[in-house]
Amino acid sequence: MPDYNAPLRDLRFVLHEVFDAPSLWARLPALAERVDADTADAILEEAAKVTGQLIAPLNRSGDEEGAQWREGVVTTPAGFREAYATYIEGGWVGLSGNPEFGGLGMPKMLAVQFEEMLYAANSSFALYSALSSGACLAIDAHASADLKQIYLAPMYEGRWAGSMCLTEAHAGTDLGIIRTRAEPQADGSYAITGSKIFITGGEQDLTENIIHLVLAKLPDAPAGPKGISLFLVPKRMVEADGSLGAANAVSCGSIEHKMGIKASATCVMNFDGASGWLVGEANKGLAAMFTMMNYERLSIGIQGIGCADASYQGAVAYARERIQSRAPSGPVAKDKSADPIIHHPDVRRMLLTMKAMTEGGRAFACYVGQQLDLAKFAIDADERQRAEALVALLTPVAKAFFTDTGLDSCVLGQQVFGGHGYIREWGQEQLVRDVRIAQIYEGTNGIQALDLLGRKVVANGGAALKLFCAEVRDFATQPAAPYAAELLEALQRLEGTSEWLLQQATRSPNEVGAASVEYLQLFGHVAYAWLWARMVAVAEARQAEDEAFYGAKRATAEFFFRRLLPRTLAFEASIRAGAEPLFGLASEQF
Amino acid sequence: MPDYNAPLRDLRFVLHEVFDAPSLWARLPALAERVDADTADAILEEAAKVTGQLIAPLNRSGDEEGAQWREGVVTTPAGFREAYATYIEGGWVGLSGNPEFGGLGMPKMLAVQFEEMLYAANSSFALYSALSSGACLAIDAHASADLKQIYLAPMYEGRWAGSMCLTEAHAGTDLGIIRTRAEPQADGSYAITGSKIFITGGEQDLTENIIHLVLAKLPDAPAGPKGISLFLVPKRMVEADGSLGAANAVSCGSIEHKMGIKASATCVMNFDGASGWLVGEANKGLAAMFTMMNYERLSIGIQGIGCADASYQGAVAYARERIQSRAPSGPVAKDKSADPIIHHPDVRRMLLTMKAMTEGGRAFACYVGQQLDLAKFAIDADERQRAEALVALLTPVAKAFFTDTGLDSCVLGQQVFGGHGYIREWGQEQLVRDVRIAQIYEGTNGIQALDLLGRKVVANGGAALKLFCAEVRDFATQPAAPYAAELLEALQRLEGTSEWLLQQATRSPNEVGAASVEYLQLFGHVAYAWLWARMVAVAEARQAEDEAFYGAKRATAEFFFRRLLPRTLAFEASIRAGAEPLFGLASEQF
Repeated sequence: MPDYNAPLRDLRFVLHEVFDAPSLWARLPALAERVDADTADAILEEAAKVTGQLIAPLNRSGDEEGAQWREGVVTTPAGFREAYATYIEGGWVGLSGNPEFGGLGMPKMLAVQFEEMLYAANSSFALYSALSSGACLAIDAHASADLKQIYLAPMYEGRWAGSMCLTEAHAGTDLGIIRTRAEPQADGSYAITGSKIFITGGEQDLTENIIHLVLAKLPDAPAGPKGISLFLVPKRMVEADGSLGAANAVSCGSIEHKMGIKASATCVMNFDGASGWLVGEANKGLAAMFTMMNYERLSIGIQGIGCADASYQGAVAYARERIQSRAPSGPVAKDKSADPIIHHPDVRRMLLTMKAMTEGGRAFACYVGQQLDLAKFAIDADERQRAEALVALLTPVAKAFFTDTGLDSCVLGQQVFGGHGYIREWGQEQLVRDVRIAQIYEGTNGIQALDLLGRKVVANGGAALKLFCAEVRDFATQPAAPYAAELLEALQRLEGTSEWLLQQATRSPNEVGAASVEYLQLFGHVAYAWLWARMVAVAEARQAEDEAFYGAKRATAEFFFRRLLPRTLAFEASIRAGAEPLFGLASEQF
Repeated sequence: MPDYNAPLRDLRFVLHEVFDAPSLWARLPALAERVDADTADAILEEAAKVTGQLIAPLNRSGDEEGAQWREGVVTTPAGFREAYATYIEGGWVGLSGNPEFGGLGMPKMLAVQFEEMLYAANSSFALYSALSSGACLAIDAHASADLKQIYLAPMYEGRWAGSMCLTEAHAGTDLGIIRTRAEPQADGSYAITGSKIFITGGEQDLTENIIHLVLAKLPDAPAGPKGISLFLVPKRMVEADGSLGAANAVSCGSIEHKMGIKASATCVMNFDGASGWLVGEANKGLAAMFTMMNYERLSIGIQGIGCADASYQGAVAYARERIQSRAPSGPVAKDKSADPIIHHPDVRRMLLTMKAMTEGGRAFACYVGQQLDLAKFAIDADERQRAEALVALLTPVAKAFFTDTGLDSCVLGQQVFGGHGYIREWGQEQLVRDVRIAQIYEGTNGIQALDLLGRKVVANGGAALKLFCAEVRDFATQPAAPYAAELLEALQRLEGTSEWLLQQATRSPNEVGAASVEYLQLFGHVAYAWLWARMVAVAEARQAEDEAFYGAKRATAEFFFRRLLPRTLAFEASIRAGAEPLFGLASEQF
């Protein structure tokens, strides 16, 4: 198993040079007092140590051992408990949490970079705290002052964890048909009864308590998604002074045996009249849960980038060391019987595809982080509103495009290893198995695509999209913008296709769903083109400072524009073929 | 785990209706006496029973238990021994084997269909006999009369198995640098010494003997691939009367722990002065081994189709049963709380992509089988030669394109299941893990692409390609040929790109390797377009006989032409960007 080394130079390039985050922070009062370039760098360096030295070494062993269930008790693999204890001492769970309750209040632009490292090091481990951070966000935004006072501090500390209980055996995408019910009790609490499946970290042995956020229906609830409420259900009851009381009526019925992320416990959770408290308003639980869900969607997107980078690091190291056949242009390692495979064109194609997509994703994640920071911290209401619209538009792209390209990259990274890529001890195959879930959970990528095209583009008549396209066009029409012609052509392809789809959507209800996945792919490629052009602009300006580093950025961009961006031709043509070719067969003709 | 049901109606459609195999067999004397339409159907039906009822039920349990190694002894999972014994009673190992030694002499067009079922049912099980069939082919073609007399009959019977010992730890793609050596002995045999890795079925408990075909170097051998010889090395020595003697100096050092095909033993094989016999001429072992390798390449390609079909069957069944959200065009199952997901456009997109690619592959496999039958059985030397040229051209396409689209299909089939797709007991994730190896072994798909573009297109100045393109054009220019315009446009894209590449190849040694993978993808899509048009021609003519069946073929073709074939736009554009964007970075800049 190759080591994971956080790509600090590349992370700083994006954060400081491409997005100039410190200047942004300086003008946002809430951040200005907490973070500057040096603080950020210190945090990233510490994060690199924690992920590389503490957490990454548990990735292979965690996969082999897996989480274990016995009579309702879940045991994480050897080393996880100790590593988790050290990890929470660093305050990482509350990195971007509300300082009022002990969070560090760091910007999301920084947090996304930390999350990339965490997933790259060990996706299973990362999930135990990713759910806590998201649960805190929902509690902070929607729960009563009392609940916040009791729960947030220990959750930010990492002593208590969070979970997200949505799915039931018959209801995944379609939450409107859930059956878990909540009976009001005399003391203002609710008795929650029902069974939830696929609950990441629903039970574990890392924390003193687990705070479940549970979707359930009140007795008088309307049918469908407008009749869902959100409840906070602790594993152990919490006394008024914050100490732990008796066990709540919550139990873990079993854990799943999965393709990957084996060290992450995926639980069946049974609620048998468990005590819960309403979070937010009755029957508006889905909206409240979306605060958590959107957090997790970006986070899971970043899992795609993290796994891809881990795979890339392994593949580059292997391609430099493995000698096999002579390079087509003549011997490179003349003293050896063959050349390192990194000199073979097709190996370079694979590595460059991984590199271009991973670094494009890293920049995109930083951009989404920037918009999240603006939405939260900007003084100006218009600026906040604009940022919120962009976050809504870009979150499904981040979730699905990072993870689709994440699987592609991990498959390529495995392929570079040849036969060794298929063998467990070499580590590459685990990344393929681990990253694969990211296309499925937190809403499948098909659902993300529907969200993007249906809700975030068509439903607002393309208004949010226009904000994004205007930003891309502003860049591309600057004097001397790199790849301006290519970028404008790609942008026009996205805009033209979007216009066409806005019209089509009014004609047939199937057009959105027929086009959505390829539309999201088109969107992702255009966004990466813009970000690569931005990276090149910085690299051109600084080339003399570090020829090798900035030269690599420019060469990778060149590869992206020449060899990957042409895929948009195919996406557009396929989209414009419309929904009809999907409906030529009756369901029994499949 | 869903059942596997061989798609007999679809297999017959391709064999009888699209390719009219019985007419071909009738005009080839060697086949005319052995097989006709009824025989073929009887064999396919029996094959469907064996694979569906005997072998498929061992697929999940085989994955969970895996092959086990203990002190040199390999144990296959529970049930494999009994199933294998029943399996060989049916004569399946020698299905297309030489009747002179007990083979059934059946045409390859039929054998590829059997292989599809076998891989669909259980890829690990399939491999144990796939290697035997290929080894027989090489022995039959290249070994001395004595060796053939001793070894072929028990191998065709399946009492003895074959293995293929090429790879060494430092030499996979690059066989020229292998170190295993062969010392001539006084009795005409050779003492083989060396260690081979990744040997599928190198050791197992299914057969009485294992016949290893081993690449090794003679003491005076020239360096590189022209100094490799092929040896037959039995696990147990064979007496003159065919009875088994002492153990040979061959041992299994360990087996690999892999991502998938866990019930297939992938062995480290150690040869410690083992007795072996030369097969074919000294120093011409690579060419002799290619007889086996080309067989295995097509076979492994078919693994891609088989796994994809198994995944498709599971996904269709699930998509019909799983209800979730209402169809966008309005409720379909009004009596239920939601509609079957097969009514959602994006689920249809996934299923149709799988269906179009799997059935395209099935037709392509039959076409390659047809050419193999012509190469072997045609009376006319020109016809044989033409068929041989086509087989050489098409084998790398079959291996790589079937398995690339095979992985894509299995990933889609898993995605249709949502969260359940990631859980082991549902079976879909195993297909992803099992099919993944097919892109790697028997020469990675990158190597197949190099073989296609470098050796099979560029090296002969496009002569073999012209044969293929002429056949496609002949069809597309027939009066009333379906999709003629689309097919001719795609064909011109392939021809134009090929012409351009023939020129580029003379300019820079890197151009072939830079373009090869996307070129193979382009080739595969154009070939499938041709085959889908051929299938439509049949379906149009017979529509009235079975509206549902032939209507489905036409609708699937429509989907392929409108929604998948546009990918060729992207392949061409990326290819024409050339090799330069791959060489902008020095190896240390990655």
